[in-house]
Amino acid sequence: MMNREALSVVLLSPRNPLNIGAAARAMSNFGFPHLRIVNAYEVAYQEARSAVNASAILASSEQYNNIEEAVKDCTLVVGTTSLGHRDLQLPLHRLEMAGRLISEAAVNGRVALMFGSEKFGMSNREMAYCHWLTRIPTREEHQSMNLGQAVSICLYELIRSDEAVFREPEPLTPATAEELHRFTELLLEATRESGFMNPKTAESTEAKIRRMVNRLAIPARDVVTWQGILRQVLWKVRGA
Amino acid sequence: MMNREALSVVLLSPRNPLNIGAAARAMSNFGFPHLRIVNAYEVAYQEARSAVNASAILASSEQYNNIEEAVKDCTLVVGTTSLGHRDLQLPLHRLEMAGRLISEAAVNGRVALMFGSEKFGMSNREMAYCHWLTRIPTREEHQSMNLGQAVSICLYELIRSDEAVFREPEPLTPATAEELHRFTELLLEATRESGFMNPKTAESTEAKIRRMVNRLAIPARDVVTWQGILRQVLWKVRGA
Repeated sequence: MMNREALSVVLLSPRNPLNIGAAARAMSNFGFPHLRIVNAYEVAYQEARSAVNASAILASSEQYNNIEEAVKDCTLVVGTTSLGHRDLQLPLHRLEMAGRLISEAAVNGRVALMFGSEKFGMSNREMAYCHWLTRIPTREEHQSMNLGQAVSICLYELIRSDEAVFREPEPLTPATAEELHRFTELLLEATRESGFMNPKTAESTEAKIRRMVNRLAIPARDVVTWQGILRQVLWKVRGA
Repeated sequence: MMNREALSVVLLSPRNPLNIGAAARAMSNFGFPHLRIVNAYEVAYQEARSAVNASAILASSEQYNNIEEAVKDCTLVVGTTSLGHRDLQLPLHRLEMAGRLISEAAVNGRVALMFGSEKFGMSNREMAYCHWLTRIPTREEHQSMNLGQAVSICLYELIRSDEAVFREPEPLTPATAEELHRFTELLLEATRESGFMNPKTAESTEAKIRRMVNRLAIPARDVVTWQGILRQVLWKVRGA
């Protein structure tokens, strides 16, 4: 379990209030309360904070004039980049692995997760404050992501659960054999009354229909409605 | 590996061109080419398509007047919802599991992944076209996500790699013992010349400094620069 209190999302020189707001919304969705903004374009910051629905996260966000101040209490500083190939002179982890490393580091210390400006990403100078970098595994041909989407994907990776991959939802209670039998009898009756059933092949057709009904896997909650539909149709067929 | 060609992202009644564009951008980032839009607000659709940088995905997107047409070639139709608790009368899988099921279904058939309108999400009528629903595991207190972010997270889950969680990057080649020895000798020299080293405790201090240098894990690429820095400092100390 990720210790969400121990992470600070750090936005570097964000320019667009919509992006600041989108980052804060994703943080609220996933329960990460701490936002730090370095060298924000002041108008954008104020506009984002005063927007309708500005979350508690924006209201309590902190402004810094430089990276040093923004990360000073952190034991791990991670930068994000969309660049896969340039010589970054820093270890570069795919997000899947970065998520694990960040969760581990957040047990005993604070972690800063930094995002560069919308237009240029993180500069080399900014990257030099990082212990390592991470990248979202986008296509070679289109690597640059929207800032709000990048923040939301990184936070999702931090809260996603491996166990949930195989956690089935509450299964629907299946109908009992007796309920299915009653349904099948009505269906067989309908096939006879409507002329679908050929008396010469009745036995094999009956068996086939029973198998088809079993493959339907009718839930208990629906079986009575199905019976009602058939009963009504049968009534109409008989009257015709 | 997800068969990305087999997935259609289906946006239901999108109203905001920024959201349509954001969804298309995420699709381009992660390599999902097929976008279908049902009952778009026409102005928003045209505005999104004509935007600068409108991706190839928007250019080739298809418009439909109803859900039936938009999903008719799909063998699996999945709806997205932010609601965790209301009685949805459909199986509800967390995204982690949905990702696995969608990848499996995409091997042999087409899959539609539907997103409701920004304001109201999917209606009950729209959900009735789905085989099951999925939800991104957001906080109870703030479940509703931005449309573009929701699309990007769902696609990320589809392309993320479990193996990548433990895939280390190319490790930096560590310096050899000989290189470290040369560095340590310079450092010891600097501690003597500068007066840091107390001759009475020289032996234990030397051992301590050797251990500290080993813990630094200096990479081969950096060791010569470190030596150069020390040599220069030493030269200056001796001149003082």
